[in-house]
Amino acid sequence: MMEPLDLHDADLRDRAVRAALGQMPFDVLITGGQLVDLITGCIRAADVGLVGPMIASVHAPGARRDAGETVDVAGGFLSAGLIDMHMHVESSMITAAAYAALVVPRGVTTVVWDPHELGNACGLAGVNYALTSAKGLGLRMLTLAPSCVPSAPGFETTGADFTPEVLAGLLAQDDIHGLAEVMSMRAVLGRDPRMSGIVHAGLSSGKRVCGHARGLTGAPLQGFVTAGIRTDHELTSAADLIEKLQAGLTIEMRGSHDHLLPEFVAALRDLPALPQTLTLCTDDVFIDELVLRGGLDDVVRRLVGYGMSPLHALQAATLNAATQLGRADLGLIAPGRRADIAVFKGLRDFEATHVWTNGKPYHDPTPDIAVPPALLNTVQVKELTADDFRIRASGTTARLDIIENPRFTQWGHQDVAVQNGFALCPPHMTRMAVVNRFGRHSPVRLAFLGEWGQWNGAFATTVAHDAHNLSVFGGDEANMALAANRARELGGGLVVVKDGKVLAELALPVAGLISLAPSAEIAAEFQAVRAAMDQIVIWKPPLLVFKACFGASLVCNAGPHLSDLGIVDTTTGQKLRYGADG
Amino acid sequence: MMEPLDLHDADLRDRAVRAALGQMPFDVLITGGQLVDLITGCIRAADVGLVGPMIASVHAPGARRDAGETVDVAGGFLSAGLIDMHMHVESSMITAAAYAALVVPRGVTTVVWDPHELGNACGLAGVNYALTSAKGLGLRMLTLAPSCVPSAPGFETTGADFTPEVLAGLLAQDDIHGLAEVMSMRAVLGRDPRMSGIVHAGLSSGKRVCGHARGLTGAPLQGFVTAGIRTDHELTSAADLIEKLQAGLTIEMRGSHDHLLPEFVAALRDLPALPQTLTLCTDDVFIDELVLRGGLDDVVRRLVGYGMSPLHALQAATLNAATQLGRADLGLIAPGRRADIAVFKGLRDFEATHVWTNGKPYHDPTPDIAVPPALLNTVQVKELTADDFRIRASGTTARLDIIENPRFTQWGHQDVAVQNGFALCPPHMTRMAVVNRFGRHSPVRLAFLGEWGQWNGAFATTVAHDAHNLSVFGGDEANMALAANRARELGGGLVVVKDGKVLAELALPVAGLISLAPSAEIAAEFQAVRAAMDQIVIWKPPLLVFKACFGASLVCNAGPHLSDLGIVDTTTGQKLRYGADG
Repeated sequence: MMEPLDLHDADLRDRAVRAALGQMPFDVLITGGQLVDLITGCIRAADVGLVGPMIASVHAPGARRDAGETVDVAGGFLSAGLIDMHMHVESSMITAAAYAALVVPRGVTTVVWDPHELGNACGLAGVNYALTSAKGLGLRMLTLAPSCVPSAPGFETTGADFTPEVLAGLLAQDDIHGLAEVMSMRAVLGRDPRMSGIVHAGLSSGKRVCGHARGLTGAPLQGFVTAGIRTDHELTSAADLIEKLQAGLTIEMRGSHDHLLPEFVAALRDLPALPQTLTLCTDDVFIDELVLRGGLDDVVRRLVGYGMSPLHALQAATLNAATQLGRADLGLIAPGRRADIAVFKGLRDFEATHVWTNGKPYHDPTPDIAVPPALLNTVQVKELTADDFRIRASGTTARLDIIENPRFTQWGHQDVAVQNGFALCPPHMTRMAVVNRFGRHSPVRLAFLGEWGQWNGAFATTVAHDAHNLSVFGGDEANMALAANRARELGGGLVVVKDGKVLAELALPVAGLISLAPSAEIAAEFQAVRAAMDQIVIWKPPLLVFKACFGASLVCNAGPHLSDLGIVDTTTGQKLRYGADG
Repeated sequence: MMEPLDLHDADLRDRAVRAALGQMPFDVLITGGQLVDLITGCIRAADVGLVGPMIASVHAPGARRDAGETVDVAGGFLSAGLIDMHMHVESSMITAAAYAALVVPRGVTTVVWDPHELGNACGLAGVNYALTSAKGLGLRMLTLAPSCVPSAPGFETTGADFTPEVLAGLLAQDDIHGLAEVMSMRAVLGRDPRMSGIVHAGLSSGKRVCGHARGLTGAPLQGFVTAGIRTDHELTSAADLIEKLQAGLTIEMRGSHDHLLPEFVAALRDLPALPQTLTLCTDDVFIDELVLRGGLDDVVRRLVGYGMSPLHALQAATLNAATQLGRADLGLIAPGRRADIAVFKGLRDFEATHVWTNGKPYHDPTPDIAVPPALLNTVQVKELTADDFRIRASGTTARLDIIENPRFTQWGHQDVAVQNGFALCPPHMTRMAVVNRFGRHSPVRLAFLGEWGQWNGAFATTVAHDAHNLSVFGGDEANMALAANRARELGGGLVVVKDGKVLAELALPVAGLISLAPSAEIAAEFQAVRAAMDQIVIWKPPLLVFKACFGASLVCNAGPHLSDLGIVDTTTGQKLRYGADG
């Protein structure tokens, strides 16, 4: 892990020590605050003196008055800035600068960004765009090298292929802080040479090797961790959480699966102390939720709402995170540490009143950098017709292999009627289609889904984890073709169609994932998409929700998933092609 | 911090993953144990499978039977190997190999060694001897670069002078794990360029910068930590402990000051959880205590005896230590971690029944390496006479500046009679002498000490922190000269004299600090020295104890201390010369 050396400037240390000793004034003196001390687990009144980007002194209230600027935080709670341990900026469909503008004022000062979606969609051009856009913001973005591009080689095709050599090159860069989310679990356990080589590149770099251990338990979990994977955020139950803590994994407990948080909080309360390996992350936050409720601050807020002690939530979000990152400069308000400080009005609502990053308050949003041409016009798909969404079959009935259950997908069977050479989708089932959008011009691949609700319209999206091929869900072929073609025209995005008309749409012209519009505008359009979706599907929370559509192609997870190569199952190795080409 | 890359061997990972999955047997399978899980804070029955130096699997008892070797630990408690966060092997007067043979079978698998005494006595030759001797043992020795050679430049002379350039050179070596114990507190706070340069060299190396913050509180403590110092083991009270925890220092709570441990334990029990920055160390352990009671295992045992929960003591000694060292491979029994494992019969006596380091049990002691000539015959002092130990004075009485109080030394005054041109030492006071032993051939420097007991004989020692000049304590000049000359003849060591006869002695021919004799023999001789000392001094614990003699010249601490340059005080800058040369 590269520790930034800016705090080790000799002149800065000189000035900070002299200021601590009272031989010169602080640059900034924060008075009137209550310090949340996560080392001792106590809250105490304390003033904090800053010199440049560094905390120079934490001392008794009123002990010092001399400072270039004094900020009275009026009884607010002083916390180290929040650290989001695992997230994808792209999942909020906005740029890094726009993300920073939304979360820094809420107290989030560091995020660990896996630009995995940009990497899958646009390869190294995508990652380099992420690295460039992550710099010079008021938000510290620790960018990782996406490990799984694609997540399931041979089971899907994406916009790039990151070999061990490509990753070794990325990991050698100072601005790459580790290997991101190793999610090809079967390849890791099967000692697939490509995946072993990628993990080895991560380990050899001396940087963090992050993981995704969804559903692993027992021997496979032990094997996955023994392979060198150090983190997980894919928790499915309290028992899963405890087993993964016991396995020594750094847990990045994520806010994106809210329904699980109450049982996690209960399980953690049963332990004698908060594990120091427990940290927090957002993973994926839709833009409307980000605008309305925030980023990691909202995870902290919800955890406390579900009964976690505020000090434990902050410990997970600051000190534990910094420790697990190996970043001694972060996560603590103490002398010599980095002046990343959030002041919260209270420890229930976590409303931030002041935020400093590197000793500076957040100012106006940084302008976005230019988007390189490789990230534009990435939806390379021919115009589609209703027939492209039909499964060819012969006779009068056919038995099809189908996908059941949106959460832990399983194989199922369905007898369907055949008409005019095509299989009919039963009304209680959903049609899903995936077509490669990276210039392969391969046929549309199709599946029938069970327990995915009843659809009365269609939804097309170029946000489809993790390959981000053009994915379409619907009840009928005509609306599906219309939605897909509109997404294609937009150069990527989300489109909801009903009765031959577009109900709502959100253009995502950058890599088919990101919009450059103002965040509030994107949020409003996204909310319109949500509302339109409610008109065409009946959801069944917590398993079948709008969000499930975006993860329906997550091929690396256990069970059958539809990719641009057909219905594939990395556990069993099965690949099955349904489409208009038979 | 250099993370050793041996665990990242691709073939080892392959084998370990396959063993975890049950596709091949473990090398070693540890059964029948109760795992002390310091992440969840719970104890659970678990078996542990090892492959080479790595833990490959932690699983339910009996889940696996296939292994090259199965070891039933019969209900013992499985802990990660203990980590001693700060120590000086030389303080036990034995070699690194002899130290390993004493502590590894007791469960200590890692020590952080500051070869500060060897550095002061013999310069780079001493440090290189330490580095060479630290390798190839069953004990992981993480050697640091001594930062304070000497600890108080200008106030003492030692065998070497480590400039910032010398330290930058050491810190660039892979086998140097950080900058050791920055103890020149006044120089750090005064921004002395030499000391600032040394700390800067440590910070710039990206390795740990360790400290010694004895007596610092308030603004000076804040300044010291802001300067970049990250650790402290010099705690003087519970309040000092809490203030230093709050300052974000990694606390290396040491066992060498036993009388303080009960109040530390009580203060820690008042906190809602054990701070993750709390670790343990031995610092200095005399050889007899090491042989009889152990190293860091004895600190753990005593803390639990004083009321610390066994899990907290182990957490401090393993997981917290590893985390603060930035060593993800250590401190935890979990898949993918290093197989440093201690099995304790119980969690009160901490009697180790099995110990593995890097997956291997400890075998016969490694033979000592050859001692380089630069470390032999290091007591370069002329033969001394009784007159060398007299303070020249004129008239019939004189008022002398004296040193009061062995623990926190203070200036005092004493009116003394003058006879034949020399000041007489009052019977309630102690004479102390220091003479440079590194070839300077400077006059003996003298002081009268108050509250150092009544002496009826003399004690000479070449172990005298941290300069390790020849130091002599006594009631009369003749016995002092005899003791000093005998220590000189031995080429260094400890000598107790009474009534013109040597009562006991321990030869320390290596750097005047270390013996190559068998540990049991050194321990017996040392105990004879202790017993002899009891015949010539009445101690007043806890402040005036035998050990105080070895720290009486620790010039970097606040207050007056006698060095080879006279009575010096780094706080006030005073230097005062008493001696036969006036």
